[in-house]
Amino acid sequence: MRRAVVLLSGGLDSATCLAWARREGFEAHALTIDYGQRHAIEVARATEIARVLGAASQRIVPIDLSLLSGSALTDPTIDVPRAPTSGIPVTYVPARNMLFLSLALGWAESLGSRDLVIGVNAVDYSGYPDCRPSFLHAFEAVAREGTKAGVEGGAWRVHAPLIDLRKAEIVRRAIAWGVPIDRTVSCYDPGEDGIPCRECDACRIREAALSEVASARRPGPRRDD
Amino acid sequence: MRRAVVLLSGGLDSATCLAWARREGFEAHALTIDYGQRHAIEVARATEIARVLGAASQRIVPIDLSLLSGSALTDPTIDVPRAPTSGIPVTYVPARNMLFLSLALGWAESLGSRDLVIGVNAVDYSGYPDCRPSFLHAFEAVAREGTKAGVEGGAWRVHAPLIDLRKAEIVRRAIAWGVPIDRTVSCYDPGEDGIPCRECDACRIREAALSEVASARRPGPRRDD
Repeated sequence: MRRAVVLLSGGLDSATCLAWARREGFEAHALTIDYGQRHAIEVARATEIARVLGAASQRIVPIDLSLLSGSALTDPTIDVPRAPTSGIPVTYVPARNMLFLSLALGWAESLGSRDLVIGVNAVDYSGYPDCRPSFLHAFEAVAREGTKAGVEGGAWRVHAPLIDLRKAEIVRRAIAWGVPIDRTVSCYDPGEDGIPCRECDACRIREAALSEVASARRPGPRRDD
Repeated sequence: MRRAVVLLSGGLDSATCLAWARREGFEAHALTIDYGQRHAIEVARATEIARVLGAASQRIVPIDLSLLSGSALTDPTIDVPRAPTSGIPVTYVPARNMLFLSLALGWAESLGSRDLVIGVNAVDYSGYPDCRPSFLHAFEAVAREGTKAGVEGGAWRVHAPLIDLRKAEIVRRAIAWGVPIDRTVSCYDPGEDGIPCRECDACRIREAALSEVASARRPGPRRDD
């Protein structure tokens, strides 16, 4: 059975990626990074989701990213925006996906895996440079050059199964694939109990998608109405 | 003054890189990664070296790399070889330089720097895939694609000023540039007090280089001998 390392944050997208990897037949190993984010509740939920979706193993790696300043997700002096913004969002964390993929790469090489899975999305989150296909292709290239497996001829693949999907489509697949959606955390700034703020970008995009899917599933008016 | 982030392990090569960055006119910020290596004494020495060589700041980032198994440097069940080996050494740590450069990249972007400095060397350590120029070029490319600075047109540079130098030449520059060589730690498996084993690859290469430089400097026989 081929092994894959899946970056699992505890959010809806990464949980759906884990479900995708299992359906594709991978022995899925979940990597959760505890980087002092505002949304630490995600880490606990990630463990629950890994179990429910049948991950072969999970590793939680604590890492202090306070040196990556200037982001609303790591710097308590910057507020998470409560309204839509344009350009690269202030929630961009310098080189975050690069760092997370590098950790996944090292673990994957240790496991004899050549497949990484990441829940980036270029539709609703188009402002992030490290959510674009060109970044993922460049990462595959640097992985080939910088690892023993790559030098010995192994081909690295970075799978981003959600990259072209709208959020509503992600929700549909999550439902179809048994993702425990109510246990996932998308909010950038939830309460300690995981209650979402319902105002940040991540909350608004998620709520709109859930509403869209729910209204499409609602039965039409009954004949006798 | 241009800023650079210098990866500073506490070894001879990275200390010489810090000295190089200062001579090149960079405001040098030292990044030391405490990854549970056998040679933890390096971390303490790195702080001393950063001060002596005039780093503008130093950050020490603890990170648990026990998930990167299969290396003699992170796995206590694998012995550090005491004799020369061929091929990729067992001291190769999966994706280590990738991970370290990613941390440096994130900090550099936070600091408004576009210059990273790493003490890799392709002569004496030719077995490591992540010490080769092709890896460093691929890293510059992925940094361009994956960061806000890159997308906005900034050019990332990964400087590897020692990459083509033999160890003896690095020693000569370290002497010329005021590196406190006796405080640097090269050994893969030193005692707790920093005493080198004098048998591992790193020790043998360093000792041979120091001897070569010392014998070239030794005056000829005196006339009255």
